[in-house]
Amino acid sequence: MIDSTTSTLLPRRCGNFQAMIENISDSSVRRLSAYLRQLEHFSADGVAVVSSQLLARRMNVGDAMIRRDLALFGQFGRPGVGYDVDQLTANLRKILGTNMRWNTVILGAGKLSRALMEYPGFHERGFEIVAAFDIDPRKVDTKVGDIPIHHMDELETILAQCQARIAILTVPAEVAQQVTDRLAGAGIDGILNFATTHLETPQGIHIDQVDITAHLEQLCFHATNAIP
Amino acid sequence: MIDSTTSTLLPRRCGNFQAMIENISDSSVRRLSAYLRQLEHFSADGVAVVSSQLLARRMNVGDAMIRRDLALFGQFGRPGVGYDVDQLTANLRKILGTNMRWNTVILGAGKLSRALMEYPGFHERGFEIVAAFDIDPRKVDTKVGDIPIHHMDELETILAQCQARIAILTVPAEVAQQVTDRLAGAGIDGILNFATTHLETPQGIHIDQVDITAHLEQLCFHATNAIP
Repeated sequence: MIDSTTSTLLPRRCGNFQAMIENISDSSVRRLSAYLRQLEHFSADGVAVVSSQLLARRMNVGDAMIRRDLALFGQFGRPGVGYDVDQLTANLRKILGTNMRWNTVILGAGKLSRALMEYPGFHERGFEIVAAFDIDPRKVDTKVGDIPIHHMDELETILAQCQARIAILTVPAEVAQQVTDRLAGAGIDGILNFATTHLETPQGIHIDQVDITAHLEQLCFHATNAIP
Repeated sequence: MIDSTTSTLLPRRCGNFQAMIENISDSSVRRLSAYLRQLEHFSADGVAVVSSQLLARRMNVGDAMIRRDLALFGQFGRPGVGYDVDQLTANLRKILGTNMRWNTVILGAGKLSRALMEYPGFHERGFEIVAAFDIDPRKVDTKVGDIPIHHMDELETILAQCQARIAILTVPAEVAQQVTDRLAGAGIDGILNFATTHLETPQGIHIDQVDITAHLEQLCFHATNAIP
């Protein structure tokens, strides 16, 4: 057993922590998610302790980068021994905030939305889709699994009831900004945008975009410009 | 009308172009997709010419960055006037390679896969899903729209027939690597991975990952660590 003093998370509410958070790059935070995912695989395989070298090899990054990313948040692991998988997993969840449950709503109830509503991985990782919204009368007041589909007119009322802080946007591009503004007004903290349009970000909110076509274009670029 | 000599794409097959491609960062290429998406919106709105300043404002980036990204590939636009929207759109498609059709296959025929098969945006942007693969006997030999679902045993045969170069991976994490290796062996150039696992990349192939949970975790991180 690794001495628990080898894992020290910086206290979240100190001024230094807050100042530091603002300087952390999005790519560092993205890597924390990737480390967490890999640690979950290690844990499922029964691995109790990993070195930064092994973690690095599995993830195709340098081990110095892993140590640097983690050092931003505190002191983890023991030099020459490694990281306790379960302990580092728990700490990464605390850092990301996924040690808590996050009530999440989904806007639009089309095919992609339904696939997301039925994806078990969200629940496993702390995200609970509690309501969906659409304007199609054939969808409103039906359910996907246990998730009720409400009319968009009820957005503010339902959001106040279910205390959701995260929203997934799968509405058509032409209404995405208007829906975003309503979500921001209703106190949502973060929006994951699947609409293929850039959104103006209201203050105090974070927006992240998943543009699947852009991912395909990246592959295309490399295939087109590959050296034969 | 803007003089067409103001738009000059570097010749693709010269040695300089090849050397240069290798030094272009993934984030530059991602921004090209984002510029293209925004130009498509301008075009739909009937805008014929945009300045780098307007493009920059819409995209929340600096206009110097836009000019720098584009300058990597040639000379576009006219100082003090701007970019011809249709011409720059056509040039970005040439750079990304999406001025050609890309036959694409999809591995796994679950709910997410079906939503992707029915998404009209891929066809509009040059990606044609020509075949799907699964091992579930209830799915094999059925169709989603016009797209036939084949058994995984037929993968190599069908890939040779349909000349697909891009594959979308929606199979369970535990078989993702094995399927990746078969795709690489069958000559696929690029894989878009929706499985929540890191894949070892076979030589000569590009892999890009869409981890939707990781995107949600980013939002969570910011909501958790926001300054009150």
